[in-house]
Amino acid sequence: MISVFEHPWLSGLFGDAELAALWSAEAQLGHMIRFEAGHARALGACGLADPAMAEHAARAIEAARIDVEDLARGTARDGLPVPALVAQLKQAAGEASGAVHSGATSQDVIDSALACTLRDTAALLRGRIEVLQGRLASLREAHGARPLMGRTRMQAALPITVAHRLDAWRLPLGDHLDRLDHGLPRVARLQLGGPVGTRRELGGQGDTMARHLAQALGLDPAPQWQARRDGVAEFAGFLSLVTGTLGKMGQDVCLMAQQAPREISLSGGGGSSAMAHKQNPVMAELLVTLARFNAGQLAVLHQALVHEQERSGAAWQLEWMVLPQMAMATGRALVSATALCDAVEEIGAPGD
Amino acid sequence: MISVFEHPWLSGLFGDAELAALWSAEAQLGHMIRFEAGHARALGACGLADPAMAEHAARAIEAARIDVEDLARGTARDGLPVPALVAQLKQAAGEASGAVHSGATSQDVIDSALACTLRDTAALLRGRIEVLQGRLASLREAHGARPLMGRTRMQAALPITVAHRLDAWRLPLGDHLDRLDHGLPRVARLQLGGPVGTRRELGGQGDTMARHLAQALGLDPAPQWQARRDGVAEFAGFLSLVTGTLGKMGQDVCLMAQQAPREISLSGGGGSSAMAHKQNPVMAELLVTLARFNAGQLAVLHQALVHEQERSGAAWQLEWMVLPQMAMATGRALVSATALCDAVEEIGAPGD
Amino acid sequence: MISVFEHPWLSGLFGDAELAALWSAEAQLGHMIRFEAGHARALGACGLADPAMAEHAARAIEAARIDVEDLARGTARDGLPVPALVAQLKQAAGEASGAVHSGATSQDVIDSALACTLRDTAALLRGRIEVLQGRLASLREAHGARPLMGRTRMQAALPITVAHRLDAWRLPLGDHLDRLDHGLPRVARLQLGGPVGTRRELGGQGDTMARHLAQALGLDPAPQWQARRDGVAEFAGFLSLVTGTLGKMGQDVCLMAQQAPREISLSGGGGSSAMAHKQNPVMAELLVTLARFNAGQLAVLHQALVHEQERSGAAWQLEWMVLPQMAMATGRALVSATALCDAVEEIGAPGD
Amino acid sequence: MISVFEHPWLSGLFGDAELAALWSAEAQLGHMIRFEAGHARALGACGLADPAMAEHAARAIEAARIDVEDLARGTARDGLPVPALVAQLKQAAGEASGAVHSGATSQDVIDSALACTLRDTAALLRGRIEVLQGRLASLREAHGARPLMGRTRMQAALPITVAHRLDAWRLPLGDHLDRLDHGLPRVARLQLGGPVGTRRELGGQGDTMARHLAQALGLDPAPQWQARRDGVAEFAGFLSLVTGTLGKMGQDVCLMAQQAPREISLSGGGGSSAMAHKQNPVMAELLVTLARFNAGQLAVLHQALVHEQERSGAAWQLEWMVLPQMAMATGRALVSATALCDAVEEIGAPGD
Repeated sequence: MISVFEHPWLSGLFGDAELAALWSAEAQLGHMIRFEAGHARALGACGLADPAMAEHAARAIEAARIDVEDLARGTARDGLPVPALVAQLKQAAGEASGAVHSGATSQDVIDSALACTLRDTAALLRGRIEVLQGRLASLREAHGARPLMGRTRMQAALPITVAHRLDAWRLPLGDHLDRLDHGLPRVARLQLGGPVGTRRELGGQGDTMARHLAQALGLDPAPQWQARRDGVAEFAGFLSLVTGTLGKMGQDVCLMAQQAPREISLSGGGGSSAMAHKQNPVMAELLVTLARFNAGQLAVLHQALVHEQERSGAAWQLEWMVLPQMAMATGRALVSATALCDAVEEIGAPGD
Repeated sequence: MISVFEHPWLSGLFGDAELAALWSAEAQLGHMIRFEAGHARALGACGLADPAMAEHAARAIEAARIDVEDLARGTARDGLPVPALVAQLKQAAGEASGAVHSGATSQDVIDSALACTLRDTAALLRGRIEVLQGRLASLREAHGARPLMGRTRMQAALPITVAHRLDAWRLPLGDHLDRLDHGLPRVARLQLGGPVGTRRELGGQGDTMARHLAQALGLDPAPQWQARRDGVAEFAGFLSLVTGTLGKMGQDVCLMAQQAPREISLSGGGGSSAMAHKQNPVMAELLVTLARFNAGQLAVLHQALVHEQERSGAAWQLEWMVLPQMAMATGRALVSATALCDAVEEIGAPGD
Repeated sequence: MISVFEHPWLSGLFGDAELAALWSAEAQLGHMIRFEAGHARALGACGLADPAMAEHAARAIEAARIDVEDLARGTARDGLPVPALVAQLKQAAGEASGAVHSGATSQDVIDSALACTLRDTAALLRGRIEVLQGRLASLREAHGARPLMGRTRMQAALPITVAHRLDAWRLPLGDHLDRLDHGLPRVARLQLGGPVGTRRELGGQGDTMARHLAQALGLDPAPQWQARRDGVAEFAGFLSLVTGTLGKMGQDVCLMAQQAPREISLSGGGGSSAMAHKQNPVMAELLVTLARFNAGQLAVLHQALVHEQERSGAAWQLEWMVLPQMAMATGRALVSATALCDAVEEIGAPGD
Repeated sequence: MISVFEHPWLSGLFGDAELAALWSAEAQLGHMIRFEAGHARALGACGLADPAMAEHAARAIEAARIDVEDLARGTARDGLPVPALVAQLKQAAGEASGAVHSGATSQDVIDSALACTLRDTAALLRGRIEVLQGRLASLREAHGARPLMGRTRMQAALPITVAHRLDAWRLPLGDHLDRLDHGLPRVARLQLGGPVGTRRELGGQGDTMARHLAQALGLDPAPQWQARRDGVAEFAGFLSLVTGTLGKMGQDVCLMAQQAPREISLSGGGGSSAMAHKQNPVMAELLVTLARFNAGQLAVLHQALVHEQERSGAAWQLEWMVLPQMAMATGRALVSATALCDAVEEIGAPGD
């Protein structure tokens, strides 16, 4: 119960069930199973295994009941779950075990599963960004013409309109979608390289294998990328840009809520255990928190770009610690920002 | 299943059951309950509530069955679980509800619970650092005289002994214990301030209340510290210094394991799903990962030092996201470093 | 002499004269002067000032001898140099002073100057990335077929070729160029908003003014972006992705240089003050340093995304502290990586 | 002109002449010269060199005119200035050159010089913290009883006094002084280890040499610490704790300055190039900036704890990039916080 995203009660504030499902162990295991089944079939399709045996292996993989505790023991021993998983799958495949994982390596499985998760995450976040764009556009339509005191360097400056303030929250969202379109192809791609990334164990059929397997997984059949992590770091940058934009919105709302006369009124503000009269802008504060969290995590992911030789254990598992949390923080921030829009009862100062 | 510390299989690598227990939701709730019970009794002892009613309230608090889902709903609404918890406790206390939480605020409960957790964490880590010191001393005794190539700027330089290399891993540990002794009093202290930290709601009895309550919780009866987070950030610095030292040890071991002839032999190295001949120094790599993780998190906690006014929601909950993970990473690193010592079969190059 | 980039002797290691020129105070002042001159002429062109007077003002601005010490005093007082600069320019313009800076604000000047600097930086870095691509391609052609031990998790795994290792250094560079093309339009754009970003002080001529001024400065005439810093943060992400790729290359070279038998031989390695036999891979180590530096700075820039209201002093000046250094580190890393390629005498192990 | 601390006009805002002098190249060179002279004399005192020759060498070292451009060329070649410096000093010493740098290594010189700089920095910062404590105590005495609205979660909560707000700024300063006392001995210590840190080149006289040299430099004669960087990282943590406390003060002042009615009035606020009526709380904003800067840099320094083997080039020079800037930021923040206290004309709301 260490993680705020999964904590019995803190998840009430930080949790995001939809996104948590995409990053759940079950979903990860599902992607890994689909990788191994697709890999077996691809071996058959490429003539690297007898097609019937390969199909038999693929079905056994898909039907296998995975012993998760054995994966945990395997991870403790090997640093990752794949050797234990492959052993289970080979046993499930019985005499077709030769068509299981042949020519692949642990990183192929884990990084291809990651690619699937990032693709699904991107789709979910895209939808949420579009929803938020819509809410902000509606707010603008409803309240945009109202006056507001423009503030620079935290001091009252000159009057603006609510529309002007809202534009600073809304306009970056379109750029974020553009960034997502541009960067996603660099992460939603198959990883298939074999032990040292040469695909040599696939007997000259590496590229054909990659095409088959990529199609099965709904990924792009790119060259292997196991020691090139710039796509992952770029995606993390996208996540932090989104939370940064929303953090600015959250900070603005916190500041608007504290002005007297109030520049924003929100329904359903958080209560205090000591002061019945207070209404805390909980969702707005959360946006600031999540922005600062992701900003810090981004540095960790960029440290992981120093990924030595053909595969780094240390740098790679640093990604595992950070990237899921960044995705969760971004998902939650988008939900919170939308909820914040919905909670607006009034925005702007009374015009005359 | 987002967090590597709690993940069904990644916890095999990253998990730490003992430390996870200290940071569990159950342990946190236990501290919060003890705070509220102690607070009720302190109200009685100070004449701020009828002593019998206060004792009645305290017992009701201790016996209350907490509805955790209600805490989650409350956290979603209020940004923290305390208003919902206090409502449950007041209901449990019935006519003694006046002696529940009176003059306290959410932050008093949560930060005092944190102080208890940090105190317990410090004790556990202290014991582990001492164990690791012992293992390194034993390694030194057994192998210290063996020759090793000294390396500077990643190049062979001049011969040293194993003892010399080990000292760079071992000597900082004593300094870390000293830092712990020095910094712990600044976090193992009661937080009691009331809504804005003035203790004014305790009718002139604030300091007496604090002494009673601190004693009940085994904490130091310090002035309130709700907007001064330097103690927390300092403790986080201690955690990252420990993992930094262990990360250096891990990096050294990774480098020693790759030399031919090998400068270190480890039993039980991690297996590969593709290469039966390989032995991966999994525990050593993990130390590097955890060091780089904590280094990054430390920056986030220092960002939270900018804690505005009498209490910041945004900065405070940033601590919740990061501090438990830093503690977990440190605990796991100490276990891994000790395991690494135990796994050493040979260290140093053959002497002549 | 605090900064390694400008230090009397450390600049020998960290310095980059070409890039330093782009980020020099002289260059910044030049952009600011061009902004003010262009702005004066645009006022004339839009009918917001008498055209002859505007031209007179523009020429006076261009000819003005700026008192830099007065700018320093002004910055100490106002937090930025523009009020002092404008006062000097108005004085220089004499009776045409009404055409100086009218309807503009400090941030317009400083951020437009930044946009010019980033545009020039991007051009320089683009050229250097292309040069490095060429050197790596040449190395690949000359030595690509030689064998090398593939290493995963810092352990010898299976043989690869030099080409395979080089591809992990080379292939991301093309993606980086693509990112630059994609992200640059979001920073190489005019900032013109007036005091609170509404362009209202430009009397309905804001967009026309922006077109004129953008053309004069060679920037894109975008909507004002003074409180939307995602373009700047994205550019910083690009910088850190580049240094991350080069840091991986540097770490690989350091590891190759320490293997016995050596996997790489470099001419001109650094000497030691104590060991004449040593050749330190100075350029390779530097790449690791610069990667870790930029990774950390990126977090700071993303913290600055929480840019409150119409203009944040605190978040904005945080950019000033960090962004120039990130650019310098990236420029230096590209020069060092190219030098490292040029220094390769042998790479790969002897084939049989 | 990349660094804000040394920039022709930005130094008006960020600069700190006193601290810059301590970190200047001249001061660094002075410490290095004193190290080498002290080392020569210590060689004489320990019988490792003829005493007269050693004294001759020491005087030649002290009198030598150093060619800084040669140091820059040497740094470019060797990654550090010491080989070039030693060559110059040996030439200056002529036939006494055998008593120059014998048994020492580059890191001994640079890290001992760093220790001197940190000691001097600590003394300066200590004095400034004490001054600031005094100013805050005076403010408390003068205005402490005035009422102020206590604010939690950025919302008006309950009335407090000015004293209460001031205590959150003031009380951590005493703890910071305590931390400085506690941590300083771990950085103000001699580094003397020779090429791989064993002191073996000093022929059994290493500890005696260390005592002599430490005394000459005013440092503690500790065991060598070249691969143990926890003292440096701890000192950096101290710096960031100080700026964090001041950043909280700055953020509070920014928020107080924007309330209507104003809760604080400051003399000499920054002017705007566009709005004559504005008074920007420039010093307060700067405190927030410097806090967030240092928080980010601290992570970089903790990354440098992963300092491999007997000496890491990459991790070590990462310290050079960051630590001087952290010291400068801290020094400047203390000056700004004191100036902010001096600028207070009114604080608190009018009592009735």
